[in-house]
Amino acid sequence: MTDRAPARLPAPPYYAVVFTAVRTSGDNGYQETDDRLMELAADEPGFLGVDAARGADGLGITVTYWQDEQSIAAWRNHAEHALARKYGREHWYSSYALHVTKVERAYGFTRPEG
Amino acid sequence: MTDRAPARLPAPPYYAVVFTAVRTSGDNGYQETDDRLMELAADEPGFLGVDAARGADGLGITVTYWQDEQSIAAWRNHAEHALARKYGREHWYSSYALHVTKVERAYGFTRPEG
Repeated sequence: MTDRAPARLPAPPYYAVVFTAVRTSGDNGYQETDDRLMELAADEPGFLGVDAARGADGLGITVTYWQDEQSIAAWRNHAEHALARKYGREHWYSSYALHVTKVERAYGFTRPEG
Repeated sequence: MTDRAPARLPAPPYYAVVFTAVRTSGDNGYQETDDRLMELAADEPGFLGVDAARGADGLGITVTYWQDEQSIAAWRNHAEHALARKYGREHWYSSYALHVTKVERAYGFTRPEG
């Protein structure tokens, strides 16, 4: 039904940054900036992948995966990313939470063909 | 626009279990079981909260938050949960990934009133 799948990742340990957010009304330039930021993040050293979903009730979850703390810090300090975070607090989000986590164990499943 | 908000959590450290999945076609009893499991999880010792979203492209993300490793292990061993995982591999999921993580830092934002 779809060719989407969870991000493919190396064996732990690695890091996951869990961002959960409720948006304000309207787009206000969000989608274009989000697309641009995901392109920039994917070019960062230590970026491993991303999973994202937004439900009909307005809660969105974006999980980015990183090799180490240093790569998370470098992305946090990226000028365009910092600017977008500021703009996001002013315009895009009614509330959000960010959890910086270390992945200790991971498991995957893919349905056998047929 | 909505009264949804990210889960409210204590100060780190705590644990986050990140489950990302693509479903097969049809419900096949999924929604009823998912509702039931979320009720059971919320009654478990050490359960702190949950954030969940499923996008139009079929990828869903559920993040459950826990006090410690012991509470994650107890929920994993819950008989009804174990049965649902087996049924899920047979019927509900075309692929999934599970990341057991330790939350090291967390930040929140709530838009000021007005």
